[in-house]
Amino acid sequence: MADYVVTPWEVKGSIDYEKLIKDFGTKKIDDALLKKIEHVTGKLHYMLRRGIFFSHRDLDWILKEYEKGNPFALYTGRGPSGQVHLGHLMPWIFTKYLQDKFDVELYFQMTDDEKFLFGQVPTLEESNSLAYENALDVIAMGFDPDKTFIFTDTDYAKTLYPIAVKVAKLTTFSTAKAVFGFKNETNIGSIFYPAMQAAPCFLPSILKGKKTPVLIPAAIDQDPYWRITRDAAPKLGFYKNAAIHCKFLPGLGEGGKMSASQPNTAVFTTDPPKQAGKKIMRAFTGGAATVEEQKKNGGNPNVCSVYQYYRVLFEEDDSKLEERFNACKNGCILCGECKKELAKRVEKFLEKHQEKRERAKKQLDKFMVKD
Amino acid sequence: MADYVVTPWEVKGSIDYEKLIKDFGTKKIDDALLKKIEHVTGKLHYMLRRGIFFSHRDLDWILKEYEKGNPFALYTGRGPSGQVHLGHLMPWIFTKYLQDKFDVELYFQMTDDEKFLFGQVPTLEESNSLAYENALDVIAMGFDPDKTFIFTDTDYAKTLYPIAVKVAKLTTFSTAKAVFGFKNETNIGSIFYPAMQAAPCFLPSILKGKKTPVLIPAAIDQDPYWRITRDAAPKLGFYKNAAIHCKFLPGLGEGGKMSASQPNTAVFTTDPPKQAGKKIMRAFTGGAATVEEQKKNGGNPNVCSVYQYYRVLFEEDDSKLEERFNACKNGCILCGECKKELAKRVEKFLEKHQEKRERAKKQLDKFMVKD
Repeated sequence: MADYVVTPWEVKGSIDYEKLIKDFGTKKIDDALLKKIEHVTGKLHYMLRRGIFFSHRDLDWILKEYEKGNPFALYTGRGPSGQVHLGHLMPWIFTKYLQDKFDVELYFQMTDDEKFLFGQVPTLEESNSLAYENALDVIAMGFDPDKTFIFTDTDYAKTLYPIAVKVAKLTTFSTAKAVFGFKNETNIGSIFYPAMQAAPCFLPSILKGKKTPVLIPAAIDQDPYWRITRDAAPKLGFYKNAAIHCKFLPGLGEGGKMSASQPNTAVFTTDPPKQAGKKIMRAFTGGAATVEEQKKNGGNPNVCSVYQYYRVLFEEDDSKLEERFNACKNGCILCGECKKELAKRVEKFLEKHQEKRERAKKQLDKFMVKD
Repeated sequence: MADYVVTPWEVKGSIDYEKLIKDFGTKKIDDALLKKIEHVTGKLHYMLRRGIFFSHRDLDWILKEYEKGNPFALYTGRGPSGQVHLGHLMPWIFTKYLQDKFDVELYFQMTDDEKFLFGQVPTLEESNSLAYENALDVIAMGFDPDKTFIFTDTDYAKTLYPIAVKVAKLTTFSTAKAVFGFKNETNIGSIFYPAMQAAPCFLPSILKGKKTPVLIPAAIDQDPYWRITRDAAPKLGFYKNAAIHCKFLPGLGEGGKMSASQPNTAVFTTDPPKQAGKKIMRAFTGGAATVEEQKKNGGNPNVCSVYQYYRVLFEEDDSKLEERFNACKNGCILCGECKKELAKRVEKFLEKHQEKRERAKKQLDKFMVKD
C-alpha cells in the first residue's frame, strides 16, 4: 500500500511521483523529451527544468503535430469551491507560457456542477458564482483575450452536455467505479460528472469542425479523467487528448498539498498582502531547533515549505535558487530572513495580481463564453 | 413472479394493472375520485369512464389546488426513437383534453439524450432530428400554441442540466439501481438520465419563480421516474409532482403493447392511410375459426385488438361501443366488417392528422423552446 492518496478529490500523504507515473500509466518527461521541447520552444521553462511538470501523455506527439503545422488547443480548468490560492496558479503560469510560446487557443472549464455534486459547495448557485470570481484570477494571469475561452459547466451546458452524453454512452459504471472509486452511495450526478470534464477535450474539434489535438496542462490528480476521455476519443472520431502533469505545491504546513480547506496553510489571491505575508512568516520550514544549531549544522531546504515556494513560484533564476539552497544547507541564512524575503515577494506579487484582478472585472464578458 | 415486465424501457407480457398499482405504490382512480373530477370538469372523458387512465399520484390534491385558484402545469413527453404511432397519441389526446378543460400550460419533453443513451437510436444527431419530426405530431394534436412548450433535452440543456444536477445530487446509485435496475455495465449517461427526466417537474416553478403544481399524464411505465422526483421535490423546495397513469394500447398482434420496433403491429401517424388500413385488415381479432362458428357462438371482443382500437381511440360513444361489443358477442357482426369500418376510421383520422402535421411545420418555431 502506498502511504499517499491521489484522486481528483483527495490528495494526501507523502507522494511518490515515480510510483504515480506507474500507477496512472503516464510517461515521465525524460531528458530526450526535454531536449525536444527545448528544440521547439527555446530555453526550457523553469517548471520543466525543475521537474515540476514531470509527467505526460502524448506530449511528444503534440510537438510533432505542431511542427507539421497542426497546432493544438490547450484545455485546463478549475473547480470553483472557494477563492484561488497560489497552488492553483502554478499550472496556470505554465499554461500561459504554453499559450505564449505556441500562440494557441485555451479552453478553460469552471466545474461549478462538480463542486456542488461532490459536496464541496452547498449550492449550485454558490459554486457558479465562485466560478465567476475565480475567472477574474484566470484573466489576471494575462491570457490572450482573443484566444481564451472560459466557461462554467452550467452556463455552457447546451454545448457541453451533448458532447458529455456521447462520452458517457461509452463509459460503463464498472469503469467509472474502477477509475474514480465510486460507490453505491455516490450520487448519480457525480457518476455522470467525468463525462462533463471530458467534454472540453473534444470541444475545439467540434467548434472548428476539424480534428484538433488538445493538450491539457494540469496537476496529476486530474489524470483519471483523461484516461476515460482517451478511451472514448477514437470511437468518437477525435484525437486522443494529450496531457502534461504537474506536482502539487505543498502547503505552508508540514507536507501535503496546499489546500483551500485549510486556510492557514494557503495563500489566497484575495488575501490582503500583509496578511499573506504573515502566513508566510508562520510557515513550516526546514530550520533547526535553535539559531545556534542552524548556524552550525544548517537547515534542510528539502522539507521546507518556504524553499518550495521559491522553487516553484518565486525564484525563476536557477543560480539564485541554488545559492539559496546552499546558504540554507550551510547555515548562512536563517529561516526568519528567508521567510521575510519570500513574504516581501508574495506581498508584491499579490499587490500586482489584485490590481490585474480588479481590471479583469471589465474583461469578464470578453473571456466568458456561454450558450 | 408476475408474467409481465413493465419498466420505462420494456413492456411485455399480460399486464395485471391492479398488481402494478400495488407494485408501483400508486393509487387507483376510484369512483369517489371520478365523481370529484366530474364535479370539476363536467362529463368525464371517455378515457376516464373506461378506465384507460386508471391510476394516479396526488390527482385529488391537484384538483383541490385548482379549485383554490392555484392552477397546475401539465408535463408529458416522448422518447424520439422513431415515428409516432397511435399508441403514443392516446395520452396526448387526454393531455389535450386536460389543457382545454383547465386552460393550463403544457411542458413537453423530447428525450433525445435518453434514446441515444439507452441504445434505441444509434446517434444523438438522429434522435435529436427525430424529436423535431415527432414534435409535428404533438403540434398536430391541437395544443394551445401560447401555452405549450416543446423542448429537446440537448437543445434545452442550459436550462435543464442545472435542475437535473440538483435532483441527481439527491439520488444515489443504490436508489437508481433499485428503481431502474441499473447494472455495472450500464453507461454513466443512462445512470444520470433519470435526473434529466425529473427536471421538467420543477421547470414551471423555476420559470415562473413560484411553486407550481405539476400533473403528468403518461403511461404507467414512466412512473419510476416520478418516484425519484417526488423524493427530491420537498428537499428542493418544490411541490411533489402529481401523475395520472394510462394503460398501454395493445398492438395489432396478439397481446402486448403496440411497439414501434414491430412495425406491422403498429399504425404510424406517417403511414400512408391506405397502408394503415391494410394493417388493420391484418390485425389479430377475437373471431372464431370459421364464419359459421362465429355466427353461431359469437366472437370475443375482450381479446380482440380491433375492439381495443374502437374502445381507446375510435369510438367515443359508449352506447355505440356497447352495441358493437354485443354484436360481436352475439355473432351479429363478423371480423371482416368490423375491421373494414375501423380501417376507414383510421384512414380518415390519418388523412386529417397528416394535413395538420404538414401545417405544423410552419408552427414549429412557435412551439419549440431552446436555450
